[in-house]
Amino acid sequence: MRNLIDITDLTVQEIDELIATACDIIANPDKYCDACRRKKLATLFFEPSTRTRLSFEAAMLELGGSVLGFSEANSSSASKGESVADTVRVVGCYADIIAMRHPKEGAPMVASMHSPVPIINAGDGGHNHPTQTLTDLLTIHREKGHFDNLTVGLCGDLKFGRTVHSLIHALSRYTGIHFVLISPEELSLPSYIIHDVLEKKGMSYEETQDLEAVMPKLDILYMTRVQRERFFNEADYIRLKDSYILTLDKLKNAKEDLCILHPLPRVNEIATSVDNDSRACYFKQAHNGKYIRMALILKLLGVEV
Amino acid sequence: MRNLIDITDLTVQEIDELIATACDIIANPDKYCDACRRKKLATLFFEPSTRTRLSFEAAMLELGGSVLGFSEANSSSASKGESVADTVRVVGCYADIIAMRHPKEGAPMVASMHSPVPIINAGDGGHNHPTQTLTDLLTIHREKGHFDNLTVGLCGDLKFGRTVHSLIHALSRYTGIHFVLISPEELSLPSYIIHDVLEKKGMSYEETQDLEAVMPKLDILYMTRVQRERFFNEADYIRLKDSYILTLDKLKNAKEDLCILHPLPRVNEIATSVDNDSRACYFKQAHNGKYIRMALILKLLGVEV
Amino acid sequence: MRNLIDITDLTVQEIDELIATACDIIANPDKYCDACRRKKLATLFFEPSTRTRLSFEAAMLELGGSVLGFSEANSSSASKGESVADTVRVVGCYADIIAMRHPKEGAPMVASMHSPVPIINAGDGGHNHPTQTLTDLLTIHREKGHFDNLTVGLCGDLKFGRTVHSLIHALSRYTGIHFVLISPEELSLPSYIIHDVLEKKGMSYEETQDLEAVMPKLDILYMTRVQRERFFNEADYIRLKDSYILTLDKLKNAKEDLCILHPLPRVNEIATSVDNDSRACYFKQAHNGKYIRMALILKLLGVEV
Repeated sequence: MRNLIDITDLTVQEIDELIATACDIIANPDKYCDACRRKKLATLFFEPSTRTRLSFEAAMLELGGSVLGFSEANSSSASKGESVADTVRVVGCYADIIAMRHPKEGAPMVASMHSPVPIINAGDGGHNHPTQTLTDLLTIHREKGHFDNLTVGLCGDLKFGRTVHSLIHALSRYTGIHFVLISPEELSLPSYIIHDVLEKKGMSYEETQDLEAVMPKLDILYMTRVQRERFFNEADYIRLKDSYILTLDKLKNAKEDLCILHPLPRVNEIATSVDNDSRACYFKQAHNGKYIRMALILKLLGVEV
Repeated sequence: MRNLIDITDLTVQEIDELIATACDIIANPDKYCDACRRKKLATLFFEPSTRTRLSFEAAMLELGGSVLGFSEANSSSASKGESVADTVRVVGCYADIIAMRHPKEGAPMVASMHSPVPIINAGDGGHNHPTQTLTDLLTIHREKGHFDNLTVGLCGDLKFGRTVHSLIHALSRYTGIHFVLISPEELSLPSYIIHDVLEKKGMSYEETQDLEAVMPKLDILYMTRVQRERFFNEADYIRLKDSYILTLDKLKNAKEDLCILHPLPRVNEIATSVDNDSRACYFKQAHNGKYIRMALILKLLGVEV
Repeated sequence: MRNLIDITDLTVQEIDELIATACDIIANPDKYCDACRRKKLATLFFEPSTRTRLSFEAAMLELGGSVLGFSEANSSSASKGESVADTVRVVGCYADIIAMRHPKEGAPMVASMHSPVPIINAGDGGHNHPTQTLTDLLTIHREKGHFDNLTVGLCGDLKFGRTVHSLIHALSRYTGIHFVLISPEELSLPSYIIHDVLEKKGMSYEETQDLEAVMPKLDILYMTRVQRERFFNEADYIRLKDSYILTLDKLKNAKEDLCILHPLPRVNEIATSVDNDSRACYFKQAHNGKYIRMALILKLLGVEV
């Protein structure tokens, strides 16, 4: 039995296998439609997240399994003071696999130590969200065909954005990656990631505040939300916010095959006019999220198709 | 691909077909029990409505499909500021058809302009609720066998009651209908409906405040709730409220085959002593709501049985 | 058609049959996996209870049926003032059986008087929770092989603990049971249960405040939560609370085959160090809850396997 708590729980080979399975599911959905018959997924969402929850549920349903769970903590026993350990021991009697979202960092890890069934971390506070990273990787792979030798722009809030941190961790295991870190100074990538990941592994990277200047070189552009409350003062926010809103105008010098990603939900950081551009991949990305979760559920349940 | 946003999106012929399908489902449920195998319905309820949501879910389950979604907005990405357009683009990756309830008028219409899958309006504010109208029509058809030449009483809050407005729209396309509009003056039918629907189409109608006086002529009596907060003053409310509560006593001069409808939930506008009268059709109506939604899902998904 | 509102609705023979069915399901799950195909369970939870709701849902899913419902009242029509009677009449159009949890005592009983489909009381206020009692009985039966001639310790809050009251009712129908009532004086078993059940039926019992003193004689130890707010004053609470927390140390003179039960969720009334002791049966109990509910659903739906 295995869990997925952190993206680094998976080896590069395991990630490659998950991506291969996801691609096979996309090509041959009929082959998988009864793969999890009589299996049950519990979605234990101690904080709400529609997109993530529904993608897990759709994944299990398309594998022929079924779903139960809760979508917010006040419908759960947690409000009666039950520990996460006890909750998963009990839910493990009712389901074959658990996807858990929790506001507290580490909760899914604790859960995995007591659960009789596999635990998938569906996001724990600002910490980890490994199935988002798998989604990002599958999308890059489907759009580019490979991970090596890509110039990857990461734009917006690089300080608090956990999806960015995880993606850097994951891509740093491939070769020839050049990271372009695009953010206001206040929201730049934390130094522990620069030192412990990028420099330790000898990764190529550059930092800039100017999205348009670096646009022509990018193969991937990963956008994130710049939240007003992250800024120290309103003046900085107003001065900077528009620089990190992607528009068709800012894309005019971009590569023809640039791949634009966003973990969603978006507020206004990508203009809706970009949506119909062939380089906009963020809705494809949401779709891919379902397929990689199908692959992950199969792997953790040990189901061979 | 088609959506259902407003009852007038459907032609008379399409409504007739939906009713015919619903009647066939009622007669031959086994024929339909796998019709939507591997199809998924998303119920996106940005405001709660148990009855409507459960009837959609039961409909999809009885067609052999499955269901995912949320039952209130604070469990959804809407609380993170996502637009309805983005939500349906993403949920369209996870489901084959979407039933949406939204407090804002027009939200399902906007959704339908961006969704990759069919959208059913499951109620948008005080605006439209077309599946309720289809439910009402199926019930009238099953009880009376036809729509023409009926005397239809509409009683209670005709000013704000959207189900009444939709039903008038729908029935105004048949011939020989006579509407009896029974309400306190404060809650009478808005003049734009009187002019734009009834008078423009040359429909026969009368207005009255006296339910008992018109009772003997009615073939259909559609009751709605008279809410205290709709009145300008308490004195009027107290003076009028009992006139619009249906009791066995008020039914003593009604036709033997009167058909009493109510969109439910009821608070006290029909006395529970009426429930066992053979003319009470409002629980049958709730049952019919499931069957007409089954027919609608089949039609919008293009499933032939 | 039958309902389960109170554990005493069932005869001893019916309980024996349910236990026999549950044991057969455990031994031969494949036999039952399509038993409720095309049947739907509605879980109407007017107050949240994850554990109970998920165990009902898992039960129905493992029988091949499907599930719909709501997990708290503010997602329901109840918030619009609908009566429980109307709710079940409508939901009875959408589901084949209803499990109802309600904060008001007697609500499931009222529901059963109006519902077109079987009602299972999944807990009504401090009143009844018969499927918990069935769970307890199945666990005792699986651990001990019989109900007769057992010494049963009930520990903690015997005044307000409804699961304890129901279990006493249920066990008082077997022979040779000796009850050991272990509680602080403030939380002792109400005299109406002592008189109307224990003394009327000539049951053997003793009352004590000292858990450790009676430990050696117990075959069953049923732990419940001692809630701070039940005490008249803080000093009593502090003086007494630790006496009713089960630890490995307090178990040192217990029988080798003692069976420790707890209805869960637990807060701190059993130390987690006890969890790995072979006498700890409370997680098995949670598992059994699913199987006895499967048996109950089959019985109430009249499904023969």
